Amino acid sequence: MTIGNILVGQSGGPTAVINNSLYGIIKEGEEQGVKNVYGAVHGIEGILNENIINLSKVPEELIEGLRYTPGAALGGCRYKLATKLEDQQKEIKKIFALCERYNIKYFFYIGGNDSMDTADRVNRQAKEMSYDLKVIGVPKTVDNDLVLTDHCPGFGSAAKYVATSVREAGLHNRSMYTSEPVTVLETVGRNTGWLPAASALARQYEDAAPHLICLPENPFVADKFLAEVEKTYARIGGVFIVMGEGLKDAQGNYVNMQGDQLGIDSFGHPTLEGISETIKKLIETRLKFKTRIIKLDICQQSASHFASQIDAMDAEETGRAAVQAAIGGKSGYMVSLGKQQGNTVSNTGLVELNKVANAERMLPDKYIKDNFVTINFLNYVRPLIQGEIEVPLKDGLPNYIHLEY
Amino acid sequence: MTIGNILVGQSGGPTAVINNSLYGIIKEGEEQGVKNVYGAVHGIEGILNENIINLSKVPEELIEGLRYTPGAALGGCRYKLATKLEDQQKEIKKIFALCERYNIKYFFYIGGNDSMDTADRVNRQAKEMSYDLKVIGVPKTVDNDLVLTDHCPGFGSAAKYVATSVREAGLHNRSMYTSEPVTVLETVGRNTGWLPAASALARQYEDAAPHLICLPENPFVADKFLAEVEKTYARIGGVFIVMGEGLKDAQGNYVNMQGDQLGIDSFGHPTLEGISETIKKLIETRLKFKTRIIKLDICQQSASHFASQIDAMDAEETGRAAVQAAIGGKSGYMVSLGKQQGNTVSNTGLVELNKVANAERMLPDKYIKDNFVTINFLNYVRPLIQGEIEVPLKDGLPNYIHLEY
Repeated sequence: MTIGNILVGQSGGPTAVINNSLYGIIKEGEEQGVKNVYGAVHGIEGILNENIINLSKVPEELIEGLRYTPGAALGGCRYKLATKLEDQQKEIKKIFALCERYNIKYFFYIGGNDSMDTADRVNRQAKEMSYDLKVIGVPKTVDNDLVLTDHCPGFGSAAKYVATSVREAGLHNRSMYTSEPVTVLETVGRNTGWLPAASALARQYEDAAPHLICLPENPFVADKFLAEVEKTYARIGGVFIVMGEGLKDAQGNYVNMQGDQLGIDSFGHPTLEGISETIKKLIETRLKFKTRIIKLDICQQSASHFASQIDAMDAEETGRAAVQAAIGGKSGYMVSLGKQQGNTVSNTGLVELNKVANAERMLPDKYIKDNFVTINFLNYVRPLIQGEIEVPLKDGLPNYIHLEY
Repeated sequence: MTIGNILVGQSGGPTAVINNSLYGIIKEGEEQGVKNVYGAVHGIEGILNENIINLSKVPEELIEGLRYTPGAALGGCRYKLATKLEDQQKEIKKIFALCERYNIKYFFYIGGNDSMDTADRVNRQAKEMSYDLKVIGVPKTVDNDLVLTDHCPGFGSAAKYVATSVREAGLHNRSMYTSEPVTVLETVGRNTGWLPAASALARQYEDAAPHLICLPENPFVADKFLAEVEKTYARIGGVFIVMGEGLKDAQGNYVNMQGDQLGIDSFGHPTLEGISETIKKLIETRLKFKTRIIKLDICQQSASHFASQIDAMDAEETGRAAVQAAIGGKSGYMVSLGKQQGNTVSNTGLVELNKVANAERMLPDKYIKDNFVTINFLNYVRPLIQGEIEVPLKDGLPNYIHLEY
């Protein structure tokens, strides 16, 4: 019996370990006897334009390089299937036609909650049209905001990098309290506070950074915030603040009024980056404290030079589990991860795509306390940042691979 | 014969290896038979307030920790001696009185060009007042803008971190060209382009990031810049831009019109950070390309988790050379570094403080070419980023030390 081929796409913003999931899919496919693993260039966009590459023909050293290389090796995308049913069906037919031509029986989409929506639509249309295609979503997001999974591949590495940066910049900041007392570090994470919360791992001793963590789950009230900054300054002479990009005020409006010149992204989300500039202005105007801002932005999603080994292992495992599920006949699921038990790969499970698509998991109240996090949260996140990916170095820099496409 | 004690201060913004210079001073002092090495807390501020600690009494494991810990372990400062001669002499007398009380015969100031000015003033006053104090400056700046030295301790580590970040974020950016084509990364470096130029090391293959490097040495002309962005976009589908914070227009005015709410720092320099927001707005408004910005800010000065081993060795060596010079009877000099020959510590020399104080070394024309750098520049900077500091890890994060003060 010959089983069909695999098609895999990467969607949304990459993570430091998104290619480990791709690696897991390629390797598991190979081990299961799949002849060709095709990669869609820029996710769904590549499928619609028939821009795909045969990963089974790519030299082995490049495939091995996926285990430590950041960026989506196949290209990511923010393409959303047409919302008008008629147009969407045209797109779906294009997808199935391509699958037909390449004898593709298994489709894997590595992404976050928007991407799970795309996978869900492809799966539902396949069922409706009785088209033989197994669709499995592979989780990926530094935001850690996918529901029905203990954690998401990508988050651990981002958490490790952000916590490291806060610890280092915090020591720097402390030494400059007399001239530059305040630092604001802005993290990604949209509407949820998992990543800014993880910066709490940086605190190595009493009064070390971070001092205040502003989470999107808590309404941001300027006067209350400024009072906290003043109080902390009075106590220790400086303040290191970490904040999520998606802070909202008590009315539920985004605090960041600067925004972007281009407005809304293709999934309809407002583009949020920029909160740190707003807060810098607020602090400097109202409190007259010289304030530095740090915006690591996409470095949070790509710092493979100090990525989490556990996270990389989990990412690969979700890819492998997806292949096993699909070849076992499952479709319409996302691979989920169970609690990280410490230095071994997490258990995987399957959750229905339509329960994950477009849903956001907020940081629960039990993890939040007094502009900081609880011990329980630290115990949750600490296992996810353990170990480091081994990255080959050349001439003093990480020696990454890239696929031509 | 008993020789006198040492007083050392750290001034200006720290670097990832500023404490390696401190370590070199402590160890060389010890080896030369100095009884007490005193550290001034927050540089000159600590001397004026008699806030000093006896580093010879600090446990050995903390002293060893200086070799991998970022931030100025003694606290940095931006304090400038009074400009009015009468007030300055009062301050100088305070300094000498403290030296008298603690039997201090050698004063070392680790810092950049502003700090060398402070050291120069202390030295000149000591000579004028026939006060027996040897003053030696120890170079430190990620900006690499000190004159009469081949390179500055701190620069190599910042260059390594910036180049790594650009390589990683560049791979991320490349994979998102279809939705987020432009990234602007802002570096520190005030009026000189050494650090943004060093990001060129990131380019691993043709058309890899960075694509355009905007240097303060080149006048920034918006239309010309936007044309370059468009041209690059047309050719490869995305653009990764690195720019120094201190870009100036053809009239010599700073391009960044947002600035800071607090204006000028205590040395009279305008606070420059913020150019990337200005450029993002320019690109999004004029070209309609979605643009992400990265502001590593003080992470550039504190990323010890991936700092350069050669840089750390050079930093320690400058500290040791300073002690040797002072005990040998020299005063009024800064330690300089000769060309890095590859994997051994650079040769040191001595240059007169008054020739270094307040002077800035620009990136020479021979290193600049077509919105990028020359091969000669790459050959200059590559030896400075070799090797990595060994940082002990605990629970997945760097385990730094801190001194109580």
